[in-house]
Amino acid sequence: MRIHEAVVTPVAVPDPPLLNAVGAHQPWALRAIIELRCDDGLVGLGETYGDEPHLRLLRRVAPTLTGLDPFDTNGLLRRVRTALGDADAPDRHGLTGGSSPQKTTLRVLSPFEVACLDLQGRLIGRPVVDLLGGRVRDRVPYSAYLFHKWAAHPEPDLHPDPGLHPDPDLHPARRGPVPRRAADPYGEALDAEGIVAQARQMIDRYGFRSIKLKGGVLPPEREIDAIRALRAAFPDHPLRLDPNAAWTVPTSIRVAAETEGLLEYLEDPTPGLAGMAEVARNAPMPLATNMVVVSPDDIPEAFGTRAVGVVLADHHYWGGLRRSAELAAICRTWGIGVSMHSNSHLGISLAAMTHLGAALPELTCAADTHTPWQCGEDVLDEPLPITDGSVLVPTAPGLGVRLDRDALARLHENYLRCGIRERDDTSYIRLFDPAYRMRRPRW
Amino acid sequence: MRIHEAVVTPVAVPDPPLLNAVGAHQPWALRAIIELRCDDGLVGLGETYGDEPHLRLLRRVAPTLTGLDPFDTNGLLRRVRTALGDADAPDRHGLTGGSSPQKTTLRVLSPFEVACLDLQGRLIGRPVVDLLGGRVRDRVPYSAYLFHKWAAHPEPDLHPDPGLHPDPDLHPARRGPVPRRAADPYGEALDAEGIVAQARQMIDRYGFRSIKLKGGVLPPEREIDAIRALRAAFPDHPLRLDPNAAWTVPTSIRVAAETEGLLEYLEDPTPGLAGMAEVARNAPMPLATNMVVVSPDDIPEAFGTRAVGVVLADHHYWGGLRRSAELAAICRTWGIGVSMHSNSHLGISLAAMTHLGAALPELTCAADTHTPWQCGEDVLDEPLPITDGSVLVPTAPGLGVRLDRDALARLHENYLRCGIRERDDTSYIRLFDPAYRMRRPRW
Repeated sequence: MRIHEAVVTPVAVPDPPLLNAVGAHQPWALRAIIELRCDDGLVGLGETYGDEPHLRLLRRVAPTLTGLDPFDTNGLLRRVRTALGDADAPDRHGLTGGSSPQKTTLRVLSPFEVACLDLQGRLIGRPVVDLLGGRVRDRVPYSAYLFHKWAAHPEPDLHPDPGLHPDPDLHPARRGPVPRRAADPYGEALDAEGIVAQARQMIDRYGFRSIKLKGGVLPPEREIDAIRALRAAFPDHPLRLDPNAAWTVPTSIRVAAETEGLLEYLEDPTPGLAGMAEVARNAPMPLATNMVVVSPDDIPEAFGTRAVGVVLADHHYWGGLRRSAELAAICRTWGIGVSMHSNSHLGISLAAMTHLGAALPELTCAADTHTPWQCGEDVLDEPLPITDGSVLVPTAPGLGVRLDRDALARLHENYLRCGIRERDDTSYIRLFDPAYRMRRPRW
Repeated sequence: MRIHEAVVTPVAVPDPPLLNAVGAHQPWALRAIIELRCDDGLVGLGETYGDEPHLRLLRRVAPTLTGLDPFDTNGLLRRVRTALGDADAPDRHGLTGGSSPQKTTLRVLSPFEVACLDLQGRLIGRPVVDLLGGRVRDRVPYSAYLFHKWAAHPEPDLHPDPGLHPDPDLHPARRGPVPRRAADPYGEALDAEGIVAQARQMIDRYGFRSIKLKGGVLPPEREIDAIRALRAAFPDHPLRLDPNAAWTVPTSIRVAAETEGLLEYLEDPTPGLAGMAEVARNAPMPLATNMVVVSPDDIPEAFGTRAVGVVLADHHYWGGLRRSAELAAICRTWGIGVSMHSNSHLGISLAAMTHLGAALPELTCAADTHTPWQCGEDVLDEPLPITDGSVLVPTAPGLGVRLDRDALARLHENYLRCGIRERDDTSYIRLFDPAYRMRRPRW
């Protein structure tokens, strides 16, 4: 079996106005769907970011994959390296720790690796988890991922160029009306009360047993209030707070002291490894990160300084599932915890995360997922459901999910017409708050 | 497909009187052959140490494997852990860095994991290398592994109990005559001239392009002489010297200075991590080890201190092929080189090492192998040949080797009759040199 064709299809899904330390989610989240089509008709699936610079790199790699054996993931990496050279696609929003040529290579590699594993599994009639050593759990737990948010995106006429893209050919006015976005059911959340209501709604629906609050949006005291309110409302749910490096070291240490006993971990309170290490020495809870340990080059110094207690792996930029499992093995060796990070994603990524999470003995915390925020939109005919706060690990071959080609076409049409070509939370929020300035740390 | 039966068969193969820092190889080297027999008739093969304490642990695990899916290597580890508890089998000769419960678990896990991968490959019609990410090379290079040695073992009547085993039932006199050992063709090597002659003979036969000299036998000056003589005779072959921690730190630093420009690496010159780190700071060449980094617990401190530049992985005690690949990934992350260590072994282990070596981009040095010293004895019908100093990576399913049941029975009969139940190089040499004392460091 050889790969005959690699197809990259960008899609856009409605995204609610979720707030974070760098701005607000735009109305559309971009993803790219990877299909590796084999000469015998099998298709392997992968999913990754859909930003234009990343798409360009995916498309540079895709035609070089013809003839590759899907078991040859070492050969896949060689082809990716050859196609990319020293290319580096920027990580404009910076919420996953910036970019480097090494990280860019692994980020481009990832969806193709996942699609190769999907193909391997389909070919041999085994779920992907079996290719990763077999399941250590039948269900992978996820956390309720809470966001401060507006009730809805401001009206389109308030932001005449929702894509903020300099290329006028991509302006939606040139392409007809922007497709309608489904409203999200969660409403506004700009204080502790709103956050608790959001948690209750999400937990009622999905049964989550852990809660993560995206912070860095309001002054720290108000986010501590939200944590206290969550603890009161959900006394048994492990809680985490992630301000995306919005705080100084002293602020981080103060928040850590004030939330002692409340948090399972504090995630990326402050920028940079030195700051994280200083906070870690003074915080009563472990620090987690998906910002200072984001590629292999970051590991030796970070693990040497004991700056982090939990690494939030993300197969989308760690080079796929096998390399994420290697990361977990490194964490096991250094006695560092492992969980999984999430950006906006669809069901192929959820399936990939679930197979990986099922194979990692080291996964001691519930993983993050944006799934509830995509409000049922997907490219799959039957996305894996989240019930009791977890996803049942598929037993079907490969990832265990099937593409819905009508849905793929519809979400690709969204992409063509939405006008957004690169995620930019900061420019988006400035459409409505021109005084907004990106600052890290902010408090 | 499920495992129906796990069979452990100890074997003994003639071993030449190779000298090292703790004594002399006994006349028989012990190995254990693992067969995982599946309900559909497929058999997976593994190979490991055959010492009695290790055999006892293998046999404690074997009956617990019934019903295991060979893809479920995570489940295999759980079963091994359950069967062993905190068991620790001593590593009496100490040439691979002693033992710990963690290392013992991984050492017992290893042959079963290899046999599971063999089964997986046979089931899906793929060579094991494909289960490790695919081949990055078609041939895996090995080194000529030179030993100081006697021409032949002293006559049996000089050592009435060649097994040195306290159990009189195992004394060969109770079991009939000790089987004849084939003489090795290499003759005596107790000086530089003998070592060069041995190298020439081995390289003429196998085409090796790297040379490793086992040292720690003669005073360091004489081993330096041997290295200089090898350099003169083989100007283009990378050279290594491994005294198995026979030297003090000052001696190690002095030898390192005197061999500057001659050695690819210096292996385990001195005992312990602190000593290795001090030598590393003062040596012009990298230090390699299979004595201070021998299990995951050793890694963080060793890599933090930069005591070693090359880790000699050995899947026999790193928990099998996948965990050895994880070790290689850790080494890659820390910028540390990888090669492979060898004890006396047969063809199943050579096949396993070859599949692993073929899948590791990190393998930058030729691996060690004792294959020439087993003089053609094997449990396989067609052992993988070493030609041009390397082994062609099999393309047949699984490990790509087949058991020769007549040979297995014959080598098992050797085991039953040879009287040796545990490797003990020191007691063996003292039969002929009662004044010999084990000292580490010695010089």
